[in-house]
Amino acid sequence: MTRVVLCGTGNVARHLFDAFIDSDKLEVVQVAGRSVAQLHHFASHTTTTTDFNRLEKADVYILAVTDSAIEKLSQQIGSGFLVHTSGATSIEKLPVTARRGVFYPLQTFSKDLKVDFSEIPICLEAESDEDYIVLETLAKAISNKIVSLNSGHRFILHTAAVFVNNFSNHLWTIGHELCEQEGLAPELLQPLILETANKTRFLSPYNAQTGPARRNDALTIHRQIEALEKESHKIIYKSLTKSIQETHAKEL
Amino acid sequence: MTRVVLCGTGNVARHLFDAFIDSDKLEVVQVAGRSVAQLHHFASHTTTTTDFNRLEKADVYILAVTDSAIEKLSQQIGSGFLVHTSGATSIEKLPVTARRGVFYPLQTFSKDLKVDFSEIPICLEAESDEDYIVLETLAKAISNKIVSLNSGHRFILHTAAVFVNNFSNHLWTIGHELCEQEGLAPELLQPLILETANKTRFLSPYNAQTGPARRNDALTIHRQIEALEKESHKIIYKSLTKSIQETHAKEL
Repeated sequence: MTRVVLCGTGNVARHLFDAFIDSDKLEVVQVAGRSVAQLHHFASHTTTTTDFNRLEKADVYILAVTDSAIEKLSQQIGSGFLVHTSGATSIEKLPVTARRGVFYPLQTFSKDLKVDFSEIPICLEAESDEDYIVLETLAKAISNKIVSLNSGHRFILHTAAVFVNNFSNHLWTIGHELCEQEGLAPELLQPLILETANKTRFLSPYNAQTGPARRNDALTIHRQIEALEKESHKIIYKSLTKSIQETHAKEL
Repeated sequence: MTRVVLCGTGNVARHLFDAFIDSDKLEVVQVAGRSVAQLHHFASHTTTTTDFNRLEKADVYILAVTDSAIEKLSQQIGSGFLVHTSGATSIEKLPVTARRGVFYPLQTFSKDLKVDFSEIPICLEAESDEDYIVLETLAKAISNKIVSLNSGHRFILHTAAVFVNNFSNHLWTIGHELCEQEGLAPELLQPLILETANKTRFLSPYNAQTGPARRNDALTIHRQIEALEKESHKIIYKSLTKSIQETHAKEL
């Protein structure tokens, strides 16, 4: 059975832990974190520590910590099979004194929202076949989608995730803001948000594209830009409209 | 029982029709469209015509046609209670010779994707209480969410819908494009798209915001902009990042 030490107590650590403890292929022998309060979630299932110099012996140390903490923490641990969970961070940020790897689950995690790991792509990177097999065992224990990716590919995938997740979420924030300006309930947009996403299960977003930009409706585009009060919203409207028109130029 | 004539055979017309025929509060007495082939979908349930000068007598004529066709078609019909289904079109585009109204379902419709109308907000506008009641009867027959909106408010709501639907969908197209550039399957992003939308059921998008822009991670932002090949993608990345930072400025 693969022995895992999990470093970190944030959303990724919690969700990984909750998925790991359901598996009989691995054992989370310890969770390490800076705050006793944050370790509470884990303490009824495994041993915990606030001292990163007192980690248990394990086959793999998963550093599910914020990107900026990876380098320093991994240097502190120094040896063993050290694995981070970041999309944007190269495997090279881990110290050469250790065996190095990456275990990047491509998903957005919130504290109280349970996710089904079985469909989440887990992107793996290791420097030897033996280490890769260890990561593959962990990944297969929780997901059906395993992808081998080097740091360069993973960085672009993470960039794509920023567009798909962070940026769309901000467009929804703008939608809410526009409703509130008019005294309308932002919840009116909820079914539209869900159905827009649901469509991508059946249609590629390229083929699902609709709206004034796609049909080149210059009058509506002009009136909507005029109607926006914030300059930042106008800039976003224009840049996305132009990109939609360029992307679908052949059809116009 | 309210008698309805439906003009148009596109996605909105089809979905409204499919929802209407399940109700015993109204009867679609006729569907009118330019193409015999397109009328086929409706012909087994009601009478159809390609001649807009030969419409049946009805309590309401719903013009579920493309925005640019509303003015001309409504002038051709000329009288009766004429109602369009467009978010971006003012009630004033309908002729003064008719009683005028708007029946705008806030949702995205695709040809083959059945939608559940019960949760879709239907935005209504009419010029008299009597006419409003007619629209309300229709709306209540298919949905639980009825909203009274004048043309100005509806236009802003439609603008919000462009951000929420058309623009996020384009961000997903960009995500797919970035994957394809790296030889990665775009389907990898699918669980992330669905979960990002699912989150809005429990968290406002404002509170759900994560990512390099939200945490002001200047290094990752810089590296990702550098990694984008297309100038249009760089511009979108920058404008959305700036807007996220402005929106969440208090927390940084």
